[in-house]
Amino acid sequence: MTAPRVTLLSDFGTVDGYAAAMAGVIAAAAPAARIESASHDIPPGHIRTAALTLSRYAFLYPEETVHLVVVDPGVGTDRRALAGRIDGRYFVAPDNGVLSRVLHEARDVELVALRPDPHTAADGSERRTSATFHGRDVFAPAAGRLASGSTLESLGSPVTDPVRLPLPGPTRAGDEVSGEVIEVDRFGNLVTSIPESWIPGGRVYVEGRGVGPVRRTYGDVGEGELLALVGSLGLLEVSVRDGSAADRLDVGRGARVTVRGVSSRATLGRRG
Amino acid sequence: MTAPRVTLLSDFGTVDGYAAAMAGVIAAAAPAARIESASHDIPPGHIRTAALTLSRYAFLYPEETVHLVVVDPGVGTDRRALAGRIDGRYFVAPDNGVLSRVLHEARDVELVALRPDPHTAADGSERRTSATFHGRDVFAPAAGRLASGSTLESLGSPVTDPVRLPLPGPTRAGDEVSGEVIEVDRFGNLVTSIPESWIPGGRVYVEGRGVGPVRRTYGDVGEGELLALVGSLGLLEVSVRDGSAADRLDVGRGARVTVRGVSSRATLGRRG
Amino acid sequence: MTAPRVTLLSDFGTVDGYAAAMAGVIAAAAPAARIESASHDIPPGHIRTAALTLSRYAFLYPEETVHLVVVDPGVGTDRRALAGRIDGRYFVAPDNGVLSRVLHEARDVELVALRPDPHTAADGSERRTSATFHGRDVFAPAAGRLASGSTLESLGSPVTDPVRLPLPGPTRAGDEVSGEVIEVDRFGNLVTSIPESWIPGGRVYVEGRGVGPVRRTYGDVGEGELLALVGSLGLLEVSVRDGSAADRLDVGRGARVTVRGVSSRATLGRRG
Repeated sequence: MTAPRVTLLSDFGTVDGYAAAMAGVIAAAAPAARIESASHDIPPGHIRTAALTLSRYAFLYPEETVHLVVVDPGVGTDRRALAGRIDGRYFVAPDNGVLSRVLHEARDVELVALRPDPHTAADGSERRTSATFHGRDVFAPAAGRLASGSTLESLGSPVTDPVRLPLPGPTRAGDEVSGEVIEVDRFGNLVTSIPESWIPGGRVYVEGRGVGPVRRTYGDVGEGELLALVGSLGLLEVSVRDGSAADRLDVGRGARVTVRGVSSRATLGRRG
Repeated sequence: MTAPRVTLLSDFGTVDGYAAAMAGVIAAAAPAARIESASHDIPPGHIRTAALTLSRYAFLYPEETVHLVVVDPGVGTDRRALAGRIDGRYFVAPDNGVLSRVLHEARDVELVALRPDPHTAADGSERRTSATFHGRDVFAPAAGRLASGSTLESLGSPVTDPVRLPLPGPTRAGDEVSGEVIEVDRFGNLVTSIPESWIPGGRVYVEGRGVGPVRRTYGDVGEGELLALVGSLGLLEVSVRDGSAADRLDVGRGARVTVRGVSSRATLGRRG
Repeated sequence: MTAPRVTLLSDFGTVDGYAAAMAGVIAAAAPAARIESASHDIPPGHIRTAALTLSRYAFLYPEETVHLVVVDPGVGTDRRALAGRIDGRYFVAPDNGVLSRVLHEARDVELVALRPDPHTAADGSERRTSATFHGRDVFAPAAGRLASGSTLESLGSPVTDPVRLPLPGPTRAGDEVSGEVIEVDRFGNLVTSIPESWIPGGRVYVEGRGVGPVRRTYGDVGEGELLALVGSLGLLEVSVRDGSAADRLDVGRGARVTVRGVSSRATLGRRG
């Protein structure tokens, strides 16, 4: 059998050692595990960013991978802690909506609320669960147990009502589709809420400013030029070739995006 | 046997490739090793920060883990290079105090000063040890040897006087305990030098400003409110729920923290 | 057989999940692979920085390691995608010069241009290759295939003319050697284009300002003092002990460096 793989996503940064503490707990519980940091640089408390980031890689990993997600501004409140099996991968996360996008895309979902067990230290002793660091004391132990072969059912009781954040969907009126910028990535690309299939033949506007038709790729315009295209999530994006569309247009998350002159061939499914 | 696990902690950042160079040297010496970066983002030369960070994860990892720590402003001076076995885990680090906190908590310590061998490259050839990058040429080779089964004794001669940084301890006068902020974490939490057991029943002040009693967790106050609680290291912390206490109080490392009205039940052990 | 090792180098950052998407694709193609991030913090589009970074670790890793490099400002143009075996290690990268330094040092080089196959998802289905994220859809699948035992030849057709960036070499006139700063590292060290063997006995100047003779190491000057020495790449560097030479001299990449009074023993080979 291949060694289990565990990915980590958090807003802990790495300097303080909180992320490494989670990895250590997992290594102690599942010595054969391969532990990979997806990111610890989610801005503190940004659940929506983490939800989108997670959706970019979760299902590219093979089945049985354990995805640990700790962006947990509610630690120390009564929010639940979840573990789940979603389309063949395991997930461990606070119940605050951070799984919204992977749940939205999923066909096959089982979730449990983690039982608040005392956690077990590397030396076999029991440790008190801290009131401030459930990444170390609640979530990582659960991820470690899943990576070492425990069943989901053994970790807690079934849950069917996880917190789901409303995902901004596009709307259509006549031949015009409206949506918004849901994320600005590292390169300044504006990722929108509008799936490719909604907008055949349309022309794109950001806060009323024209960006032109939907191109195939960056090479279709000159260097430094603004363009619209379909990004790697299958969503409309607005970019500047070799530059930042966010800087060029001076817009960010929430900016209004419209596509005009859309063909009647458009398919208005949620994910296109 | 499970593959050996090696963690890396440094102030190298990742952009320059220095951290990856250490990983490569370890991989060449111990092909089966699982190599995990705890952090490469320690502020350049900050030995105290690295010492605290290391203490957050070192003993959560299982026994036999090799922890490599390279925050080494003294490279190119005559500071010694250390390897050690401390409570079942291996450590490789410059002798500059970066192990102070793990040594402080340890029951079982063996240390050696690394012999300045020429290091061996991946192709088996000997390379000259550089005068500026002992992470690659001294520390990583030692970590690789430990991960591939070499004994501590084979790496150098015993040392019993490692550099230990003075760790600021709290003091008590009457019913008042005094300490200081030893770290500000990514979330703006003020981690203090005062263990939980020293301060039952007390009220907390930072630079004279009242923060209230010691609460159990963030949810005990409203969003945006200041509170004192016991953090995941068992030390008093001052926080703002969903905010930054460092920003709110405009203080940082070294700020004076007092706890007044402490009950006579307090246990004045070093670690509480 | 030891599990294959794959390193990742990119300018993706980690927040957006692009880097983790590549890791997931590799994990799906080569479940036994050990995946290590060298860096995802290359400044966006900085091919020269990535080329130097890669050269710092590529050949320290053992043979058979797969090095994936995705700094790809030309995605969406007709630049080729390469895979290669260079001195025993595998490389996968866009054909934009990012391999220049490893090629420059290499004795044994085989390269192929990747065939633009549809990529295969974790569930075995074929996915369309995006026009914007070849890291996920072209490069990571190729790295995964190499890590799971595919031959280089099976990935594409031979290439003998990879893009090579001109590497700034030093020049000599009389007893004076001239070069430039090719990189400023995290510590503010100025890495120059001048190999050690070119400059025996010389005195160093940066933009005309004297830095003194070439020292052996930082400890040869007092704290806060400027010095010249030979860095871990075998190149002349200018540093401040416990400080930043870039800040002290207010210079950066491209700054002119001269070494005067060089002995006639100098060896003018490209790499010294």
